[in-house]
Amino acid sequence: MKNILSMSQFSNQDVYDLVDRAIEFKEGKTCSVGADKYAMNLFFENSTRTKSSFQVAEMNLGMKEVAFEAGSSSTTKGETLYDTVRTIESIGASVAVIRHPEDEFYNQLLGKNINIPIINAGDGTGQHPSQSLLDMMTIFEHFGQFEGLKIGIIGDLTHSRVAHSNAEILTRLGAEVSFGGLDSWYTPEFAEIGPHMSVDDLCSEMDVVMLLRVQHERLSEDENKSFSKEDYFNEFGIDMRRVDLMKADTMIMHPAPVNRGVEIADDVVECEKSFIFQQMHNGVFMRMAMIEAVLQGENTADELINNQHKIVLR
Amino acid sequence: MKNILSMSQFSNQDVYDLVDRAIEFKEGKTCSVGADKYAMNLFFENSTRTKSSFQVAEMNLGMKEVAFEAGSSSTTKGETLYDTVRTIESIGASVAVIRHPEDEFYNQLLGKNINIPIINAGDGTGQHPSQSLLDMMTIFEHFGQFEGLKIGIIGDLTHSRVAHSNAEILTRLGAEVSFGGLDSWYTPEFAEIGPHMSVDDLCSEMDVVMLLRVQHERLSEDENKSFSKEDYFNEFGIDMRRVDLMKADTMIMHPAPVNRGVEIADDVVECEKSFIFQQMHNGVFMRMAMIEAVLQGENTADELINNQHKIVLR
Amino acid sequence: MKNILSMSQFSNQDVYDLVDRAIEFKEGKTCSVGADKYAMNLFFENSTRTKSSFQVAEMNLGMKEVAFEAGSSSTTKGETLYDTVRTIESIGASVAVIRHPEDEFYNQLLGKNINIPIINAGDGTGQHPSQSLLDMMTIFEHFGQFEGLKIGIIGDLTHSRVAHSNAEILTRLGAEVSFGGLDSWYTPEFAEIGPHMSVDDLCSEMDVVMLLRVQHERLSEDENKSFSKEDYFNEFGIDMRRVDLMKADTMIMHPAPVNRGVEIADDVVECEKSFIFQQMHNGVFMRMAMIEAVLQGENTADELINNQHKIVLR
Repeated sequence: MKNILSMSQFSNQDVYDLVDRAIEFKEGKTCSVGADKYAMNLFFENSTRTKSSFQVAEMNLGMKEVAFEAGSSSTTKGETLYDTVRTIESIGASVAVIRHPEDEFYNQLLGKNINIPIINAGDGTGQHPSQSLLDMMTIFEHFGQFEGLKIGIIGDLTHSRVAHSNAEILTRLGAEVSFGGLDSWYTPEFAEIGPHMSVDDLCSEMDVVMLLRVQHERLSEDENKSFSKEDYFNEFGIDMRRVDLMKADTMIMHPAPVNRGVEIADDVVECEKSFIFQQMHNGVFMRMAMIEAVLQGENTADELINNQHKIVLR
Repeated sequence: MKNILSMSQFSNQDVYDLVDRAIEFKEGKTCSVGADKYAMNLFFENSTRTKSSFQVAEMNLGMKEVAFEAGSSSTTKGETLYDTVRTIESIGASVAVIRHPEDEFYNQLLGKNINIPIINAGDGTGQHPSQSLLDMMTIFEHFGQFEGLKIGIIGDLTHSRVAHSNAEILTRLGAEVSFGGLDSWYTPEFAEIGPHMSVDDLCSEMDVVMLLRVQHERLSEDENKSFSKEDYFNEFGIDMRRVDLMKADTMIMHPAPVNRGVEIADDVVECEKSFIFQQMHNGVFMRMAMIEAVLQGENTADELINNQHKIVLR
Repeated sequence: MKNILSMSQFSNQDVYDLVDRAIEFKEGKTCSVGADKYAMNLFFENSTRTKSSFQVAEMNLGMKEVAFEAGSSSTTKGETLYDTVRTIESIGASVAVIRHPEDEFYNQLLGKNINIPIINAGDGTGQHPSQSLLDMMTIFEHFGQFEGLKIGIIGDLTHSRVAHSNAEILTRLGAEVSFGGLDSWYTPEFAEIGPHMSVDDLCSEMDVVMLLRVQHERLSEDENKSFSKEDYFNEFGIDMRRVDLMKADTMIMHPAPVNRGVEIADDVVECEKSFIFQQMHNGVFMRMAMIEAVLQGENTADELINNQHKIVLR
């Protein structure tokens, strides 16, 4: 593939292939496709976690990183994003990983003269493909399949980069998705996908309880009522009582950073059912698979996924 | 050479040698003079483009970069620039690449105990040798010589780091330099070098149309009249009509970042005559040649240029 | 050792071993214990000097650095320090070097699930072990021992990260420590260790004159009298007159950045008796020894120091 911009670009097979490849990397396979190439990570929004994970992925593939400090960049002099990306391409970057506050920022980069692949590391309130894919990897590792899994997504669906794309891809892969949290977050686009349930019911019935980060400042705006952190925690947060409602092999997931005491209790973060730090760990390997995919895409004109096991292994 | 501080330090032969070497690097020659040495890039002003280009140049030479965040540095605790540079030398840097808002900042570093070479990556409104040299490289690549070339420089001459030094070095190398833009920018120092012409005439007659970045906020101050971006674009900006006035092999150059719709039209930025992204591409190779030159200078006491083809190639 | 958190954790033998090892590194020994491992430097406070020194130490050991910009990190979204460190561990870091404004920040990281070693690069007004150890190395290099050395520490003892721990470790190692500076800085905890003396007397009698950075803004608060920089310099600053009072082999030390004209005169900074830039130079090698020690600690369960000469040398 040439770029990774949105989950909707992937066939189910693409997702399985990327998950498969990421697991190979986790098991120790190495790959020299990026050796001595330069990666440029353009983060126009805070995201230490995602940025560091991409950096480690790049270095694991043998790439070097060219630092780019968005805050002190020429874009503050009014340069267009297109010119910034053309610049880093001219300077020698082989891939641009971009997080940007604008929804679908990548549209301004396509169909012109940029020849290096773009990876969307989060656009506005839109997509966050590497997070969605590492979530898929983590679920697949645990259950070995998606068909028939019951997935509950709890939290501010409307402001989450991953809620909608995860719901969509999981449905496509055969899982059944339900939702929890404030009624006002359960908009028609989610109602089309699955039911809204109480958190207790979700905990009892789901195979995966997928929490979203709750942004405090948004709580009081919702439904015209003021919701404290404590209120949220009591009604929707996962504490050990709710963990005890869960089935033996239920997974608790969260994209992090977590708000301890808001959407999740302190002692749940690292409990036996929690895969939160496992998700982060998996993220590095998934990002290796993604970067490999787009770098191969350069050479093989959008046919990489089929060929990805043919690459030279060190 | 020990340091690279100003274009005026170079003989014509020095310029030819650096251009020659940069073109060798572009053609794929490698050099191990910097292997496993540390480079420190001290940027006290924003310049993503220049900083990233130096980083790639350093890594291409096998060097490692020690990150230095000027914004969070000890200089904010009142440390002198001299002490900062002595510090990075003590820590192990083999070269210091410095951008600083103060004109001729490097004077406070010379003649004391600093033993690592200094490369000026832009001082105040003074010099920007790496930009001047990459401009020379880009012109030489296209025309194979400088003698008799007609060069037009259009823009805010008085606030440009490269306008004066480019005008001077090009004249020295045998080119004829003319100027365009607001009358108030055409100060006596430029009048000594060449004539002031209309932008239409410059486009018709020049071999190289070298644009400078226009800083909006300065437009209204000039000549006591308020100049809008649109006014500037109409009178001095390069659009496709003006491109059509140019000779077949005329080059359009710009140090970037460009202001689309101010000094250059959108569709001119990447038109056939534009060398803007080529300049950026060449910048990496020129910076490799510069760093190699000063690193060799350490060992060979200002005789490096003559010896530069003797270095060990990997 | 598993972590390096405080000078009080070290036996005298530990200090000698680390100094010994750092001197070996300075003499050119190399070590592959960190090869291809990732180091993460989490600096929640400005410290270019310490951060860059750790970076070079890490790269000298063959490690790669994962950049972490504390200013733009998830901690600004309210993430706990524990979760941040668990995150970087999940992402692949093998060691976390942390500077943090909170005293004993590391207590919140211990006894839970963090498995990578922590190196304290400065906590609040508490400890700064790498600075103390590089000071010990620099003294040992010069005198070959600590027993019987007379050490004078001059400056704002109460706000210095190193004053108390240096005084304590030096006393333990057999040196006699005295103090100088404003009376109000000479609190009972220092009175227990050694006498308060005039700066002239300290200069005449000491083997090491160890200056501390004076923070201007604190001067006027002390003793309810306003002290200008000039007042401080006259009463407590080291100028060439005071240098001339010193014995032939007396060392002048300062953790830097220096305030020229406040605690030290311009011409003293690099005078023959000054070891200020030597301290910085030594810092890299001491930090290599520290990182090696904790990385070996992972494998050998707190027994590393005894084994440290058994590691594979390249």
